[in-house]
Amino acid sequence: MSARATDQITEAGRTIEQGSFAIIDRETGSHAYSDREWQLVRRLIHSSGDFDFNGLTRFHPGAVGAGIGALARGAPIVADVAMIGAGLSQVRLARFGVAVHQFIADPEVIATAQAEGTTRAVQAMREAKRKGLLDGGILAVGNAPTALIETLRLIREGQAKPALIIGMPVGFVSAAESKDALAEIDDPPWITIAGRKGGSTLVVAAIHALLALAETHQAGP
Amino acid sequence: MSARATDQITEAGRTIEQGSFAIIDRETGSHAYSDREWQLVRRLIHSSGDFDFNGLTRFHPGAVGAGIGALARGAPIVADVAMIGAGLSQVRLARFGVAVHQFIADPEVIATAQAEGTTRAVQAMREAKRKGLLDGGILAVGNAPTALIETLRLIREGQAKPALIIGMPVGFVSAAESKDALAEIDDPPWITIAGRKGGSTLVVAAIHALLALAETHQAGP
Repeated sequence: MSARATDQITEAGRTIEQGSFAIIDRETGSHAYSDREWQLVRRLIHSSGDFDFNGLTRFHPGAVGAGIGALARGAPIVADVAMIGAGLSQVRLARFGVAVHQFIADPEVIATAQAEGTTRAVQAMREAKRKGLLDGGILAVGNAPTALIETLRLIREGQAKPALIIGMPVGFVSAAESKDALAEIDDPPWITIAGRKGGSTLVVAAIHALLALAETHQAGP
Repeated sequence: MSARATDQITEAGRTIEQGSFAIIDRETGSHAYSDREWQLVRRLIHSSGDFDFNGLTRFHPGAVGAGIGALARGAPIVADVAMIGAGLSQVRLARFGVAVHQFIADPEVIATAQAEGTTRAVQAMREAKRKGLLDGGILAVGNAPTALIETLRLIREGQAKPALIIGMPVGFVSAAESKDALAEIDDPPWITIAGRKGGSTLVVAAIHALLALAETHQAGP
């Protein structure tokens, strides 16, 4: 079976995707990203139809390398919402042995959040930490600023050390602030979107771009 | 258990959501939608951080009523991608007996698409038609223009009669054209986004807005 067949994308689908990237490159006047960062940004544009991500997307200088390395060694992905796991190509993740975890729908997480007056997203991050998934894993936040804020607290207190944070929560309450706080840290590396925009489809696009880079890296020159 | 608890949203989460809607209403200068349509549009803005959806979102005049009616009678939802089902509140759908179907990852759908040189999305729509789900169901497209184009063909040929089409495919090849074609039909009713923008998070937001209207409708005055 060819690589294309294992990707579960048909030739017709592949042609559409390549045509889309050609249009995006043509219509993008200029950008300030590295070649590898641009692979990721143009996939964000592709997944949203929104050229604002050329500019809004921000990278820690070590982020792309950290993401490729983490995927290549099969690090786990901790997602804040189920849509991220549903959108990711399981075939491509399995090639590196990467599993996606999310705890926001766990009955115990919901019960604790209700009892403590916090959000489910906060409790889900604590659960991921208890399971050791935040040490060396990729944290992927597409929805809940509170998930990002809680993880930043755990990192500050030395309780978590992810390999990479993809922090793209969306919204009007705390989202921009949580991403500004993320963009101030030196370690671990991060990828984020300034302002209110974000969402799980963007997180999925970012991880697919990192997977493509990891596949190229693995195939060698 | 309260209605809020069955929604699986905590008080803290509810407070954030209400705060977000207040900000959106305050920052929206003006809009040209009906009250019920605005419930849906502001949820699109909420899920994306993008005020462009005030203007880009287009409604067939009968769309909101058709959506509420379809959900209230437990009509099936046919989605083009798995992210839509993963993002929807299963608890809220179950209250109306609504099930979400998607066929894009079916091995048979993939094999037929490969063999016929079409996309998986086209074959998935044909599979939904064979199962009778497109008659009286809600078609929800967040990703693939080809899914929308194929369904419009089936409707034209009298092979499918959905209750409502939520057509929000994203992208640079055929997406805008497929949505323009949708916006020209009289029957069935439709909700769409002009231009390239779209995505599965927007479709999820639209259906959650319709669910909220159906819940209010059910609860009565």
